Amino acid sequence: MEYGQCDKRNLTMVMDLYELTMANGYFLEGGRGDTVTFDVFFRKVPDNGGYAIFAGLEQIIDYIENLHFGDDDIEYLRSLHQFDDGFLEFLRGYRFVGDVYAFDEGTIMFPGEPIISVTAPVVDAQLVETAILAQFNHQSLIATKTSRIVRSARGRPGSDFGARRAHNMDAAVYGARAAYIGGAVGSATVLAGKMFGIPVSGTMAHSWVMYHDSEYEAFEKYARTYPDGALLLIDTYDVLNSGLPNAIRCAKEVLEPMGKRLLGVRIDSGDLAYLTKEVRKRLDAAGLTDCKIVASNSLDEYSIASILDQGGCIDSFGVGERLITSKSDPVFGGVYKISAVVKDGKTIPKIKVSETVEKITNPGRKAVYRIFGNDGFAVADLITGFDEEVDLSKDYHAIDTVRPWKAVDLKGCTARPLQHKVISEGKRVSDRVPLPEIRAYVREQLESEIWQEEQRFENPHLHHMDMSPAYYRMKMDLLEKSQVHKG
Amino acid sequence: MEYGQCDKRNLTMVMDLYELTMANGYFLEGGRGDTVTFDVFFRKVPDNGGYAIFAGLEQIIDYIENLHFGDDDIEYLRSLHQFDDGFLEFLRGYRFVGDVYAFDEGTIMFPGEPIISVTAPVVDAQLVETAILAQFNHQSLIATKTSRIVRSARGRPGSDFGARRAHNMDAAVYGARAAYIGGAVGSATVLAGKMFGIPVSGTMAHSWVMYHDSEYEAFEKYARTYPDGALLLIDTYDVLNSGLPNAIRCAKEVLEPMGKRLLGVRIDSGDLAYLTKEVRKRLDAAGLTDCKIVASNSLDEYSIASILDQGGCIDSFGVGERLITSKSDPVFGGVYKISAVVKDGKTIPKIKVSETVEKITNPGRKAVYRIFGNDGFAVADLITGFDEEVDLSKDYHAIDTVRPWKAVDLKGCTARPLQHKVISEGKRVSDRVPLPEIRAYVREQLESEIWQEEQRFENPHLHHMDMSPAYYRMKMDLLEKSQVHKG
Repeated sequence: MEYGQCDKRNLTMVMDLYELTMANGYFLEGGRGDTVTFDVFFRKVPDNGGYAIFAGLEQIIDYIENLHFGDDDIEYLRSLHQFDDGFLEFLRGYRFVGDVYAFDEGTIMFPGEPIISVTAPVVDAQLVETAILAQFNHQSLIATKTSRIVRSARGRPGSDFGARRAHNMDAAVYGARAAYIGGAVGSATVLAGKMFGIPVSGTMAHSWVMYHDSEYEAFEKYARTYPDGALLLIDTYDVLNSGLPNAIRCAKEVLEPMGKRLLGVRIDSGDLAYLTKEVRKRLDAAGLTDCKIVASNSLDEYSIASILDQGGCIDSFGVGERLITSKSDPVFGGVYKISAVVKDGKTIPKIKVSETVEKITNPGRKAVYRIFGNDGFAVADLITGFDEEVDLSKDYHAIDTVRPWKAVDLKGCTARPLQHKVISEGKRVSDRVPLPEIRAYVREQLESEIWQEEQRFENPHLHHMDMSPAYYRMKMDLLEKSQVHKG
Repeated sequence: MEYGQCDKRNLTMVMDLYELTMANGYFLEGGRGDTVTFDVFFRKVPDNGGYAIFAGLEQIIDYIENLHFGDDDIEYLRSLHQFDDGFLEFLRGYRFVGDVYAFDEGTIMFPGEPIISVTAPVVDAQLVETAILAQFNHQSLIATKTSRIVRSARGRPGSDFGARRAHNMDAAVYGARAAYIGGAVGSATVLAGKMFGIPVSGTMAHSWVMYHDSEYEAFEKYARTYPDGALLLIDTYDVLNSGLPNAIRCAKEVLEPMGKRLLGVRIDSGDLAYLTKEVRKRLDAAGLTDCKIVASNSLDEYSIASILDQGGCIDSFGVGERLITSKSDPVFGGVYKISAVVKDGKTIPKIKVSETVEKITNPGRKAVYRIFGNDGFAVADLITGFDEEVDLSKDYHAIDTVRPWKAVDLKGCTARPLQHKVISEGKRVSDRVPLPEIRAYVREQLESEIWQEEQRFENPHLHHMDMSPAYYRMKMDLLEKSQVHKG
């Protein structure tokens, strides 16, 4: 069932027009142009968090491998009267021919490091920009947000209920996928279950209660249809004076005679801290100590933490709009920047020197390593040249990019390379990873590789981003030269 | 070219599982169930605005008309072990059989009024909930946000540049559609151009400049390829000391000898107020008074207004992430609530009485009118019973829903019904409206029907939402009865 219908669309044309105007320009200068490297990286974790989760790789590989222009695409482009006929014919037979390196999907990632690197002729590298970024930014955003929400629930399961407020269909479906990677136990969105095997859940809406002649009749009918899965929504009229008494009566008069227990009650409005405490007390007093309480009203990591701090009795959470839109910070700022051009067999590093300091890029083809201490936790990430050797068995003085005057000795640490080749000459060379494995990989890292200090919400410790001495010297040289090299 | 490839997907399964568990329950109670009415409405305009724009209707009609379950959908649902075999066979041949009424797409809409109403057997009405809401919420969100941004630009054109930060592919493509409806002049997203005929634009990225050996060479090559469309990105290295001088040189040494003028320069970083004033001055001094300045760095209605207040010299805007995600308020809170059930030929209004006062619904089948004064501006919207006559030629004392003690006399006003039938017994009965017409309809309303006071950003005047006396009495009776009807 995995990798289903939505991916069969040809999404080639989800590109910014400038990719095509530039590609046309390169083509007229000389075919596909020189080989270049572009890096995907981001500058800031949403919600001022300390870490982010890389998601969307599977769809990015599919997109690149399947990239092609249909006849109707070519005709549309011709109608814009901007493109050379030879270029349009080139597009007609176009397939991506480059190499792509990427972090494994689910890897915890930090600002400033290259997560995905595309090395390809400039036309090829330029054409994939927008679709890579849209997929990377969206899925990484939702995975990261979900991880925060799951953390705030302190072990209680949380599910994605957000499709209706998602930014259209893909956002619901791929958002559910990303939420699952980020730690949600499942989703309400059926297509996400079908496409990705994500566990789906769902019971009743207020309309079920209102359709029937009375709340009790609605509960009774539901319990008879689903005696093993009766989760009753109790806030249609009045939680404590109507919904809860009717649910308890249903447990006693409908379910217990069948030898069944009431699975749970759901509350979707009102003060969840107060109501869930009262509901728990009354359920327990009625002998329904095993009846679960599910809460689901405009929740996120802040409201969940606050409700739990106030003693709210909630067994699981349904999280909607604030998860599926990452409401408090709905933009993941991944960018796609050129870092090297190969001219006459020589790789020339390129740097962008912006008016805005944070927009200065890391030049050249790079490798990235996660550096682990003896306790198995990551002490830093290390950026080096692409082919540079990293030998931590002897003294290794890395440069802290934020405090470059402070060299860090990484001797005795372990270095794990983070990028792996996923596409070689246009063809996928990496295995598809089952979604539960990606999800488990996220959990493992957060439990035993990433410091808790980097995971807290308020002023998290910022992961160290180091550079090898040789890489740092190269970058500084380039920055200095850029001040005289104005063309 | 309109209505292209993305719509060919079968999106039937973009539903919340509870729609299917409820439908299965209804089916077991008796086929498709009684006829009901559900209303789509929203409670609050994003960004505390005074008005919203209805967008997404075209895709909602397509979705409902094409709703069907494939064999693989049925097999997936069977694998969940929750559904009756008879119900699954019913789904296999399922087509929507109900009626849908809706505002015209592009209508200015206000909180609390039914924008879309679905009257259908309860199974049919329930199954379309999530897809209707996801489409309505997403496109209305982006159309409304764009309208604010366009307003802030005070007549200057603004384009959607947001695909790379959109919440996946649909959000880029349908977001571009909604942005166009909301007043954007175009989009950078090629597929949106192809599918919807939206004007597309795009010239160069920083990578074009960095790929070439020098900034001047990059500009020169671009200008030779596109002598009529040379919009040069001047902030790769240093706007005032490198980008602008190179652009001016390119205008003089490359374009003017060809008899061409430099179309414009784009700035994507730094202080846009200061930089654009300086750039304007220097362009003018070089005789390039016709050269346009385009700005495009993290813009929204607040930053655009502030830059213009400070005298920024900008001719047009490219607006990215803050438009395509509606960053400052990324959730449009449209809901889908049952308002009536037909039992034994009699329509019974239904009301939801929530713990949260704002969540109390408007019961019954309804009609909505926009009420116009003699100057052609709308003085209020009026909710009435579905078949109620509205005769404003004589005294007509409507009830202000916020201040029910205050009756408003609408005598002499004009009433325009806002909902029209778009689907009858499952088939589209409304014409497809060309996108430019929808866009023009939005502009007309904002110019000559909706008070400027309702359009301002800070504390806008809230549009009056009135009820007919009969409708108001019915609602109050039902509310009172709900206090004793807890059964």
